[in-house]
Amino acid sequence: MRRFFIVLCLILPLSLAAKVVSPQINANNSVTFRISAPNASRVQLCSDFLPVTKVTSKYGNVYELPGRAEMLKNGDIWEYTSPVLEPELYKYNFIVDGLETLDMSNVYVHRDVSTIYNIFIISKNEGDKGYLYSVNDVPHGSVNRLWYPAPGLGGQRRMAVYTPAGYEDSKESYPVLYLLHGAGGDEEAWLMLGRAAQIMDNLIALGKAKPMIVVMPNGNAPQEAAPGEGSKGMYVPSMTRGAIGNNMFGNGGFESSFMDVVNYIDSHYRTIAQKSGRAICGLSMGGFHTRNISYLYPDCFDYVGLFSAAQQKRGEAAIYDKMESQLACQFAQQPKLYWIAIGKDDFLYEENVQFRTLLDSKGYQYEYFENEGGHIWLNWRIYLPVFAARLFQ
Amino acid sequence: MRRFFIVLCLILPLSLAAKVVSPQINANNSVTFRISAPNASRVQLCSDFLPVTKVTSKYGNVYELPGRAEMLKNGDIWEYTSPVLEPELYKYNFIVDGLETLDMSNVYVHRDVSTIYNIFIISKNEGDKGYLYSVNDVPHGSVNRLWYPAPGLGGQRRMAVYTPAGYEDSKESYPVLYLLHGAGGDEEAWLMLGRAAQIMDNLIALGKAKPMIVVMPNGNAPQEAAPGEGSKGMYVPSMTRGAIGNNMFGNGGFESSFMDVVNYIDSHYRTIAQKSGRAICGLSMGGFHTRNISYLYPDCFDYVGLFSAAQQKRGEAAIYDKMESQLACQFAQQPKLYWIAIGKDDFLYEENVQFRTLLDSKGYQYEYFENEGGHIWLNWRIYLPVFAARLFQ
Repeated sequence: MRRFFIVLCLILPLSLAAKVVSPQINANNSVTFRISAPNASRVQLCSDFLPVTKVTSKYGNVYELPGRAEMLKNGDIWEYTSPVLEPELYKYNFIVDGLETLDMSNVYVHRDVSTIYNIFIISKNEGDKGYLYSVNDVPHGSVNRLWYPAPGLGGQRRMAVYTPAGYEDSKESYPVLYLLHGAGGDEEAWLMLGRAAQIMDNLIALGKAKPMIVVMPNGNAPQEAAPGEGSKGMYVPSMTRGAIGNNMFGNGGFESSFMDVVNYIDSHYRTIAQKSGRAICGLSMGGFHTRNISYLYPDCFDYVGLFSAAQQKRGEAAIYDKMESQLACQFAQQPKLYWIAIGKDDFLYEENVQFRTLLDSKGYQYEYFENEGGHIWLNWRIYLPVFAARLFQ
Repeated sequence: MRRFFIVLCLILPLSLAAKVVSPQINANNSVTFRISAPNASRVQLCSDFLPVTKVTSKYGNVYELPGRAEMLKNGDIWEYTSPVLEPELYKYNFIVDGLETLDMSNVYVHRDVSTIYNIFIISKNEGDKGYLYSVNDVPHGSVNRLWYPAPGLGGQRRMAVYTPAGYEDSKESYPVLYLLHGAGGDEEAWLMLGRAAQIMDNLIALGKAKPMIVVMPNGNAPQEAAPGEGSKGMYVPSMTRGAIGNNMFGNGGFESSFMDVVNYIDSHYRTIAQKSGRAICGLSMGGFHTRNISYLYPDCFDYVGLFSAAQQKRGEAAIYDKMESQLACQFAQQPKLYWIAIGKDDFLYEENVQFRTLLDSKGYQYEYFENEGGHIWLNWRIYLPVFAARLFQ
């Protein structure tokens, strides 16, 4: 038996590089990072817990890069220990003599659009952010990936559906949250980067959210499925373009055909198929889609969440020109919650000020949640549990 | 709108490293690999299409490392173009001055136990290996990840369930294939490394396999779920030990409690809940589990597939001592197909010769499939479609 394991262990790795322990989460919630790079002359850690670097692009836009920290060499191993970290899901990679690389000792890798990086989670107490994003010893829902007919966009499309713990063995009907991703994302984004299944499992187990179905469609009109999951092959994902080269925003097509998604869910899951049993929210482009879908179908959603939403017109579709009259329709049958969230440093902040000014000028009721930070997943992972806790009460 | 995209594009990446196109699959199915490493003095490509290097360990075991090829520097970019490649799913990484790194331009990353690497697929014609492993424009099944009660192993456990295209909108009952992973694998292994969902979609669409449900449980007795998917957190996966440090083989516990899996599936899916509607197969440890489960429950499975199966006793469980009498039971009600597959270079080859000698000595009917190569996913991805095409005919 021992020989079996030894041989097996040796067969699989691509090579025999010394493995180091990294990241090592220490008892005080500092984190030690290590990489074996005997021949390197400079190694840096790049992570979002480090102070950001502001850079101005040649277009004059100011943007932020995750901070870097110098790692110190000890024998063949480069090492860096962070300060004590607050509960959060953090991302990082290494830069070895200018070359970006992953931490090959850490198999937990996320993809955000076309970038891959390692992650780790810090949690101190039940209910903190790190706890909400972790898999805890609580009842777990199921996550299904399925293809559904989407005649409005032509052909079959892929989506992910979370059903809460207990759904399979119950006869009850459940409310549904439609959860939309941003530009460059896809039906996997809220599950991977947004930790949606973990957040819902934990909120429900803590009694902070009602059990609900969560539906994550692919909101890129020209993309049938996440990169690598559709028949366009393993192409390089892009922020702005789907596999066949069209604008991800879809010029209203996704919004206009959204009942393809709702009808599929209502006919294949035990749902509360009425306004009081439906919520919709999304981030960035998905916030824009949420706003448009909810005004296009004013009888459909009682809970609407715009997370760092794009608000200006992104195309020439007729549905965009109908916004004001449709909003009038939507707010004439006041949704139970119309929730707008954004970070102070978000580059879409001003667009949201303008949109709120419009709502205010009409006297439409909404709630507003503002926090620190910008257009990043750290914020969208905050908004989801705050919004979800308000639903179907 | 343009400004929106520009800003958004700049915000997300961890840094601004020049992206190169890699891998680039050329028209003749050669592949060009590129990496920007201006400061490096030597860069190699490591991939399983290159001739292997044989190495002898200090224990005297001979094992193989994927071959390496020198990349050539052209400005800041290192480049290598492969010969014309046959249809297959290939893995690779780069070695930059001795440092292993992924191709950061390729977001398609697989994890095998504790190793991560990039992949790409070559396909020439409908039905070839690369085609079977790809997402093609065919009807797609669904893949659900769910938690089920497993009293025999204590608590809830996670599994993946593939349902074929059409299942949701049908009233029919379907046969079920139980598909088991090897040591170091988990309920994600056949989906990721084995391309099981793609293989089944394509085989069914080509008319080469019957529509069937495919159930992928976690066969590591001490592990409730894949690493990162259970409450043990984001630990480093291991070939031999689960999160709580116990032998993955489980000393018969997984086999003895396997009806927990079957009962859950039969009570939650529309199955043909009888011997003629059930198949079971697995690789390596999963082949060992398959052999044991199928003899423990001789009325349960009409199709049995041992892929590169471990055959010697891996523990002291009583069920292992009952093998010969239980095999007599099993073959007294001859399964429709008892299928043994192994590569000529597999380190378990001799164990399988001994097992077949036993079967031959008793006159038990089985089929034997032998091919080139060793204990690797390239072979298990071959065995699955050959076996699946034989089921439920």
